[in-house]
Amino acid sequence: MGIKSVLKDDEIPRQWFNITSDLKGVLPPLSLNGEPVKPDDLEVIFPKVLIEQEMSPDRWIDIPTDVVETLLKWRPTPLCRAEGLEKFLKSPARIYFKNESVSPTGSHKPNTAVAQAYYNKKEGVEKITTETGAGQWGSALAFACSLLDMECKVYMVRISFDQKPLRKTLMNIWGATCVASPSPETSFGRKMLDENPNSPGSLGIAVSEAIEEAVSDKSLRTKYSLGSVLNFVMLHQTVIGLEARKQLRSLGEKRVDAVIGCIGGGSNFAGIAFPFVGDKIEGQDISIIACEPESCPTLTRGPFVYDFGDSAGMTPLLAMYSLGHRFIPPAIHAGGLRYHGASPLVSKTVNEGLVHARSFRQSECFRAAEIFAKTEGIIVAPETSHAIACVIDEALKAKEEGKEKVILFCLSGHGLLDLKFYESHMSGESIDFKLDEKTLKKSLGSIKDHPKPIIAC
Amino acid sequence: MGIKSVLKDDEIPRQWFNITSDLKGVLPPLSLNGEPVKPDDLEVIFPKVLIEQEMSPDRWIDIPTDVVETLLKWRPTPLCRAEGLEKFLKSPARIYFKNESVSPTGSHKPNTAVAQAYYNKKEGVEKITTETGAGQWGSALAFACSLLDMECKVYMVRISFDQKPLRKTLMNIWGATCVASPSPETSFGRKMLDENPNSPGSLGIAVSEAIEEAVSDKSLRTKYSLGSVLNFVMLHQTVIGLEARKQLRSLGEKRVDAVIGCIGGGSNFAGIAFPFVGDKIEGQDISIIACEPESCPTLTRGPFVYDFGDSAGMTPLLAMYSLGHRFIPPAIHAGGLRYHGASPLVSKTVNEGLVHARSFRQSECFRAAEIFAKTEGIIVAPETSHAIACVIDEALKAKEEGKEKVILFCLSGHGLLDLKFYESHMSGESIDFKLDEKTLKKSLGSIKDHPKPIIAC
Repeated sequence: MGIKSVLKDDEIPRQWFNITSDLKGVLPPLSLNGEPVKPDDLEVIFPKVLIEQEMSPDRWIDIPTDVVETLLKWRPTPLCRAEGLEKFLKSPARIYFKNESVSPTGSHKPNTAVAQAYYNKKEGVEKITTETGAGQWGSALAFACSLLDMECKVYMVRISFDQKPLRKTLMNIWGATCVASPSPETSFGRKMLDENPNSPGSLGIAVSEAIEEAVSDKSLRTKYSLGSVLNFVMLHQTVIGLEARKQLRSLGEKRVDAVIGCIGGGSNFAGIAFPFVGDKIEGQDISIIACEPESCPTLTRGPFVYDFGDSAGMTPLLAMYSLGHRFIPPAIHAGGLRYHGASPLVSKTVNEGLVHARSFRQSECFRAAEIFAKTEGIIVAPETSHAIACVIDEALKAKEEGKEKVILFCLSGHGLLDLKFYESHMSGESIDFKLDEKTLKKSLGSIKDHPKPIIAC
Repeated sequence: MGIKSVLKDDEIPRQWFNITSDLKGVLPPLSLNGEPVKPDDLEVIFPKVLIEQEMSPDRWIDIPTDVVETLLKWRPTPLCRAEGLEKFLKSPARIYFKNESVSPTGSHKPNTAVAQAYYNKKEGVEKITTETGAGQWGSALAFACSLLDMECKVYMVRISFDQKPLRKTLMNIWGATCVASPSPETSFGRKMLDENPNSPGSLGIAVSEAIEEAVSDKSLRTKYSLGSVLNFVMLHQTVIGLEARKQLRSLGEKRVDAVIGCIGGGSNFAGIAFPFVGDKIEGQDISIIACEPESCPTLTRGPFVYDFGDSAGMTPLLAMYSLGHRFIPPAIHAGGLRYHGASPLVSKTVNEGLVHARSFRQSECFRAAEIFAKTEGIIVAPETSHAIACVIDEALKAKEEGKEKVILFCLSGHGLLDLKFYESHMSGESIDFKLDEKTLKKSLGSIKDHPKPIIAC
C-alpha cells in the first residue's frame, strides 16, 4: 500500500530551518531612511524574539514546547500520493502532496499565527492587530489568539469584507473583531474615507491601519502581526518541508526531482521548499518551482529591487522582486497571490538560481483544480491550483521523457470557502488577465529612484 | 505529549464490525406487504453484496482492498485529546474526539459512499441516484462516484437547493448532476409539481424520485443509494469506532467511560458506538449516549414501531423508533438530524438499554459549538454540536463527582459550509423549537395501524 505517510506526535519537527546561512553572501537588510533597520526600529510593532528571528544567522531555531503542543492539534499533516492524478495523466511520475488543508482554518497560515501569538503573549502583549485580504490570514490569527485568550483585531479590505463574508464569520466565531478597511477607527482610515467614502480599500491601506492602531497604544500591550513576506514567517513555515522530507523517506523515496508551490508573499512556498533548497545547495539535483498568476507575475517579470512592503510606503524597504508597490493586481480568485512583491528570502533564492519561477493563466489553473478534484477528491483553494497546474506540466513532461520522476507539491489550502472560483469557471464567467508591458512599466516607474540591493558575496 | 493518536496506513481496519449477532434475539426484519423482505425484493435498487450485508449475521465482514485503498486517502482519521476544552471546563475528565471532518467532503459520509459506489460498479452499475437534504450525503456520493468514474444523480430537496447552494457546487465540481426536487424528471416529481408548482420539497419526495429513476432503468445499470438508516450503512461506518478504540489504547487509555455521538438516521453514531456496544455486551461498564435535537426527538419521545423510511410510504416497513413518517421537523440548522426515524440497528440497541438517548435545545448546542471553537479551534457542523453539548454535560458531571472519566465523541463533520448556524446564533436570530404533545400525537396517529415489531429473544 503506502499511498500516504503520517507521522506520530513525537515525530513533529522540534526546530525550524533557517535558510539564511546556507545562501551565498548576506541577505540585503531591511532598509529605513537609507540605513539598515535596527532591532529597536521594529520593537514598537513586533516582540523581541520575532525580531531576533528576523535577523538570525542560526541554521536551526528551537520551536518552543507550547508552540509544538498547539501545532500538534493538526500537525504533522499527511503526505499523500496522488495516484488518481497519476493514472489520469498516464504519467510514470510519482506525485506527492503535503496536505496543509487539514488545519482548523483550512490552510498553512496557522503554522506562523500560532508562533507569533505565542511570542506576543509571552512578552505581555494582550492584543494583536493585522490586515487581511481574502481572510485566510485574518482567520488564522483569530484562531491562534482564541486559543491563547488574546484580543485580535483584523482590518479586512472593504471589497473582500463585502464580497467574502464567510471568513469574516470565522473570525467572529473565534472572538476576533473584524472591521472593513478603510475604517473610521484610525486617522489614516478616516483620511482615506474623507478622500473617497466608497473606497474599496487595499491591502496597503489595511496594513497602515493595523500598524497605526498598534503603535498608538503607548502601553505596548498592542502589537502588529504579518502573515507572510518576513523572514520569521518563512522560518515558521519550514515545518511543512521538514515533515515532507521525512515522510518521503518513510515511503521509500530516496530522492525528489521537483518541489512545487504557489507563491504570493511566499510563505507556503518557502515552507515546502526551503529544506529542499538546503539539499540543493549541498549538491542534490532538484528542480524547485514557484508558481504565480500571469496577472501578478512578480518573480517572472518584476525586477530585483528595494521596494516597500505596503502600497502606502510606510514599511522599511525590502530587497525583493517587485512589480512596484503601487501595482494593483486584477481581482483574480486567488486573492492570496495578489501581492506586488515576494518574500526577500524567496527572492534571494530565485536571484541565486536555486528556485525557478513560472506563471500560469487563471483558466489553466482552474482546469488543473478540476482534474484534481475529480481524480483525488479534494477541492483545493484557487491559490493552490497554480501549483497543481505546474505539477500536471511536470508529470506530462516526465511522461514524454519516459522518466519515473518524483514530484512533491504543497497543497496549501482547501477551497471550501472559495467555491465562487469553481462556480465562475464552470459557468464560463471567468477571465484570463495578462499583465501588459505598459502597465508594468508605469508601475515600475514609481520605484526607479529606490536604492539597488547589493548582494555581498 | 500524546495529545493525539494517528495510525499508519497499515493499521486501518480490514474488516467492518457487524453488531447484529451480538444483540439479543433477532433484529425485526424489513417488512413489505406484511411479509419479511426477501433479497430479491431489493435487487432492483441495490447491488447483491449490499443486500447480503444488510441481512448478514456475520460478526466481521471483509473490506475489499479497493475500498481500503480509497479510504486511505484520508483514513485512519486522527483521535485528538480536547485539552483546551478540559481546561476551560476545569474538569478532571479526559475528553477525546475522533475527527471525521478531515475527509474530502468534511464529514463521515464518504465512509459508506465509497463502499456503496464500489459494490455498484463491480456489479456493472454505471449510474447511481440518491436524494439529499442539506447536501452532506449528496456531495459524499458525488465524490465517491467521481473517483470511480461513475455517473451520479442527486435529487436535492428544493428548499435546500435554493438556500444552500454551496454543497450543490461541490456536487457539480465532482461531476454529479444535482436537480431540485420535486423535479419534472420523474412522474412522481411531475405529480407533486402539478399539485403545487412552488413545493419546497421534502426528503420523502426526493427519495421517491431517486428510487423511481433507478427502477425505471430496465437495463439495471442505474441503482439507488442511501446514506443512512440501513444496516449496511451502519456496518460501513464502524471503521470510526474500530480505529478510535485502537487509538485510545495507543494513548494508554485502558477504559472508556462514555461514548457520545449525534444522531439523525444514525450512521455516525453507529460508527463510533457499535464497537463499544460490543464491549458493553461483553461486560464493560460504558455509558453510550445518542444525542438528538429537542425539535426532532425520535429516540427520546417516539415509540418503537414498524414505520416507513420515507414520508411517501414507498419503502418497506422498518422496525425503529419513529415520530411517524409524515412528521415534518422544523427547519433547524442541523439538517442532518431532521429525520422522523432512526436506524433499526441503533433503535434495537436503545430498546435493549445498551444505548441511552438524550435531546438538546438548539441554543445549548450552539453554545457548546462556540466553546469548542474557542478552546479547540475547530468549527464543527451543527449536527456535531449536539454531541459536544452532551460531552460538556458529562465532563461537568465528572467534575462534580471528582472522577477522572474518559469521554470519547465523534466529531462527525466541520461546519465550514454551515456558517449560517453560527451567524444566526451570534446575531440572536435563532429559535429553540420543542416538539409539542399535540403535534406528536397527531403524527403518530397516522401509523397506529402499522404492525408492532416482535423482538424474538
